[in-house]
Amino acid sequence: LDYHHVQVPFEITLWIMLASLAKIGFHLYNKLPSVVPESCLLIFVGLIMGGIIYGLNDKSPPVMDSDIFFLYLLPPIVLDAGYFMPSRPFFENIGTILLYAVVGTVWNVFGIGFSLYGICQVKAFRLQDVSLLHNLLFGSLIAAVDPVAVLAVFEEIHVNEKLHVLVFGESLLNDAVTVVLYKLFRSFCEMPTIKSVDVFAGVGKFFVVGLGGVLVGLTFGMTAAFTTRFTKDIRVIEPLFVFLYSYLSYLTAEMFHLSGIVAIIACAMGMKRYVEANISLKSHTTVKYFMKMWSSVSDTLIFIFLGVSTIGENHEWNWPYICFTVIFCLIWRALGVLVLTFFVNRFHVNTITSKDQFIIAYGGLRGAICFSLVFLLPDFHRKKLFIAATTVVILFTVFVQGMTIRPLVDLLAVKRKRESAPTVGEQIHIRFLDHLLAGIEDISGHWGQYYWKDKLEYFNSKYLQKILLREYDQPKSSIVLLYEKLERKHAIELAEAGQLGHAPSHPSLLCSHFLCSNNDRTVITDKKSEDTLNPDVLENIQEILARNLYRIRRTGPAYNRHTLPGETEPVEHAKEILILRHKSL
Amino acid sequence: LDYHHVQVPFEITLWIMLASLAKIGFHLYNKLPSVVPESCLLIFVGLIMGGIIYGLNDKSPPVMDSDIFFLYLLPPIVLDAGYFMPSRPFFENIGTILLYAVVGTVWNVFGIGFSLYGICQVKAFRLQDVSLLHNLLFGSLIAAVDPVAVLAVFEEIHVNEKLHVLVFGESLLNDAVTVVLYKLFRSFCEMPTIKSVDVFAGVGKFFVVGLGGVLVGLTFGMTAAFTTRFTKDIRVIEPLFVFLYSYLSYLTAEMFHLSGIVAIIACAMGMKRYVEANISLKSHTTVKYFMKMWSSVSDTLIFIFLGVSTIGENHEWNWPYICFTVIFCLIWRALGVLVLTFFVNRFHVNTITSKDQFIIAYGGLRGAICFSLVFLLPDFHRKKLFIAATTVVILFTVFVQGMTIRPLVDLLAVKRKRESAPTVGEQIHIRFLDHLLAGIEDISGHWGQYYWKDKLEYFNSKYLQKILLREYDQPKSSIVLLYEKLERKHAIELAEAGQLGHAPSHPSLLCSHFLCSNNDRTVITDKKSEDTLNPDVLENIQEILARNLYRIRRTGPAYNRHTLPGETEPVEHAKEILILRHKSL
Repeated sequence: LDYHHVQVPFEITLWIMLASLAKIGFHLYNKLPSVVPESCLLIFVGLIMGGIIYGLNDKSPPVMDSDIFFLYLLPPIVLDAGYFMPSRPFFENIGTILLYAVVGTVWNVFGIGFSLYGICQVKAFRLQDVSLLHNLLFGSLIAAVDPVAVLAVFEEIHVNEKLHVLVFGESLLNDAVTVVLYKLFRSFCEMPTIKSVDVFAGVGKFFVVGLGGVLVGLTFGMTAAFTTRFTKDIRVIEPLFVFLYSYLSYLTAEMFHLSGIVAIIACAMGMKRYVEANISLKSHTTVKYFMKMWSSVSDTLIFIFLGVSTIGENHEWNWPYICFTVIFCLIWRALGVLVLTFFVNRFHVNTITSKDQFIIAYGGLRGAICFSLVFLLPDFHRKKLFIAATTVVILFTVFVQGMTIRPLVDLLAVKRKRESAPTVGEQIHIRFLDHLLAGIEDISGHWGQYYWKDKLEYFNSKYLQKILLREYDQPKSSIVLLYEKLERKHAIELAEAGQLGHAPSHPSLLCSHFLCSNNDRTVITDKKSEDTLNPDVLENIQEILARNLYRIRRTGPAYNRHTLPGETEPVEHAKEILILRHKSL
Repeated sequence: LDYHHVQVPFEITLWIMLASLAKIGFHLYNKLPSVVPESCLLIFVGLIMGGIIYGLNDKSPPVMDSDIFFLYLLPPIVLDAGYFMPSRPFFENIGTILLYAVVGTVWNVFGIGFSLYGICQVKAFRLQDVSLLHNLLFGSLIAAVDPVAVLAVFEEIHVNEKLHVLVFGESLLNDAVTVVLYKLFRSFCEMPTIKSVDVFAGVGKFFVVGLGGVLVGLTFGMTAAFTTRFTKDIRVIEPLFVFLYSYLSYLTAEMFHLSGIVAIIACAMGMKRYVEANISLKSHTTVKYFMKMWSSVSDTLIFIFLGVSTIGENHEWNWPYICFTVIFCLIWRALGVLVLTFFVNRFHVNTITSKDQFIIAYGGLRGAICFSLVFLLPDFHRKKLFIAATTVVILFTVFVQGMTIRPLVDLLAVKRKRESAPTVGEQIHIRFLDHLLAGIEDISGHWGQYYWKDKLEYFNSKYLQKILLREYDQPKSSIVLLYEKLERKHAIELAEAGQLGHAPSHPSLLCSHFLCSNNDRTVITDKKSEDTLNPDVLENIQEILARNLYRIRRTGPAYNRHTLPGETEPVEHAKEILILRHKSL
């Protein structure tokens, strides 16, 4: 037996196996996951595992290594989050998200830090040796909402998209603030005296860390898109580039002390559009599948490790400090949300309701990031107290808040995620308003959201697509492509309908009204099923309409700052019509 | 800048990136890969990289770590090889493959070892200090044909399937022999005296290593199949199990000093059938895609590392020893193939032609396994000579033999792989003969290949499928499933035909003759295109026929040792017909 030789990969594989089997186990009993969030169950499994290891070895089980967490477990989850982030609600609420993430986090850090320092001044609690700086350092690591914990809970409760993106976006983007403040206070702790210059340098550093992360991410994202232009002959390694470049962006950002989370999100969101267009359909399925699989396993491992690491003798118990930490975390977050939302609501038509505010405040879960940061603290005599307090806060937020948030959402009747996709009519009107508002902003000279969106779209189609997309030169209209896709889908349904005895649904029928029907088969579709459009079909129709409408606006004689009426675009439009005509004959 | 923190993952990612970009680079110039095998190009890239590192640092570049090779780079390639191994030709030639792999390798080891010892006795060569045991040890590592190198070359030259499976199967299965002989001679080298007991123990060990590997592999393979029965609710982690279990089988085998390669191949071949049936279509695409991707990257990395490791000061040059090593490798392999094939041909109707024998002998490429083994040798004063000789043999076989084998195959007009799939008629006759021979063997009491195949199939359907397949209880006939699949495909083609102006091809038409046509659409297919069946369609028809014929045989009143006429099966058969009738109405 030669265990030492294979130990490292063997143990890694076994941990992953344990995580996967635990996941299967939970899903075998359908009732359990509907009551208790998976994250709680996994921590519980971890606690049991930790207890067993502790009982057998009579020493503390190994603590989750911060390096393993930050270098291997966190990136897949963040990549998945960035890649599948719904971009429209995210960019529509980017201002609010940044406000929560930056101002809100700073507010929480200082609020928690100063009030805990106040508690330390009470003689009866025997905490006078914890300095203000140490309290602020602790505040900086405990204040940040954790994306992994938030995602695990919010994916199960299905609140409306805006609420989801607000909490989740905050949890992702506050990484830059956390990194800066944590490192700042850590270096202050080790410095003999602090000059005011250092404080200002810290403020400046925040912009460097955040914007630098975005820059690194976008650079790698664009390189990834560019690389996938040349993979036509070796389709099989296409998915690799998506993973390699995004991981490199994370590592590079970390290397330069920038925000790795921000970098990987920028990379994923930047490359998604181009990579999707370049790589083959099977490659894309593999990318999506593997991303989900990887993040799911990482997530599972993190919660199990969290449970395992809780057991042991790393803790120093001090009732007042720990209780007040939990209370201050709750109070300052609630206050922060209230104050910030007050300002946000003054500048927005779509206000954040008080119910939503409550869920935002209540959904501020802490997780593995705090835990890893507290273990990374330099050794000092009260480190074990901080570890204990962090552990309690995490367990409290994940168990108590995580388990009660679903009943609360039900009780408050918080607006849920729409079960059905928006209707075609709605979609048309939303698009129409988008273009209308872009036009109004353009004419009035207001640099608003729509103005920038329009600018970006112009820049994209004028320069980026030409460089990054493989088949940009080929004048294949998106409508034709979509029509082909719908036809294929329709044909499959026809085939299945022939066996199942149902009448086929009719995406093609609808499309054929928009375009030119070139086959008689669509005529035989059942007229009665017209009111039972399934979500997929609707989505396709919306996609057609979206592109179609946009195209019409861009090619029509409406006012546009970039093109004069009668420029090149109408020619393309005519060409498209010609192609369609030609095919229909 | 904090490079140290991210060094390990960063460098790994960069190496993989380099490998992927090198692959893309080669394929951009279409002419290069058609002349020079990719493996040669990659070694060349490695040599340049090694030269640069050597030039910059003025010390030898890092040598490929044997642990990294055996634990991380080799398993993906072998898994891919096992999973996509064409099982029919493999099992049909298993006897010949084993003969080449076991007897052939032993022959080569002792042949090369003893004749090199003879060379060492020549005083002029100054090699008298290399003992017989050291020569045999060297022989044991240099004798084995390398699966990675063989695969890289044989995938490009497209020889006939039997030839391919003979060389490739040998290169995989000789691992057990290599492991045993290498470890045996290594321990002999360290022992003061060798008893004859040790030699016999070595012979016995071979069976333990080989059969133990198969056992470990099959155990993990069956467990994997069993696990995927329960993944219905979390499809997204299904692909994980395929990778985890096969990797565990490899590591477990290595841990017990069994043959990891044999284990992973047994695992992959064992689980494939059941896993494919259990997991979703998208999961399966991901599994296949990722396996190909991973093995492709590993393969690339191995050849690049091989190139890098060649540069440096690890070599001791001795012209006679190195030249004679190359010559003996060639001679003993050629002799071994000739002698063994002589015996094989006496017992087979389908003989191995002399052209095939030449290609088998010439295709015995050496690769990274030898290279890793030679670095694993215990330190002794002539180790650098062995390293030099191994490097030369690898480079000679990969470059000279690898580059000339394609022109030689052309020149000799070696039977190529059939470009077209076998016709339906051929396929029917092959199947028919299979069942006929199984019946004859059964009646005559001869325990031949067909007898065992039949037994295995019976055991599979009676026990294994019930335990390992998720939906075994549902009496959904494979014919119905295939019919549905073909209908869908046909429908897609119809849809595309409508746009492309072609008449649809007619898989459904053919099927509808076998089954009952339930739609009129097939009637409109163009009768003229009947002689242009594409390979995919043919394959599907063959699949239907294969299962169909087998079912008829098993349910018909033909002689069968397992079932009496009128047992349960005919009822199912009737039920099927009923289902089909019902659907057609």
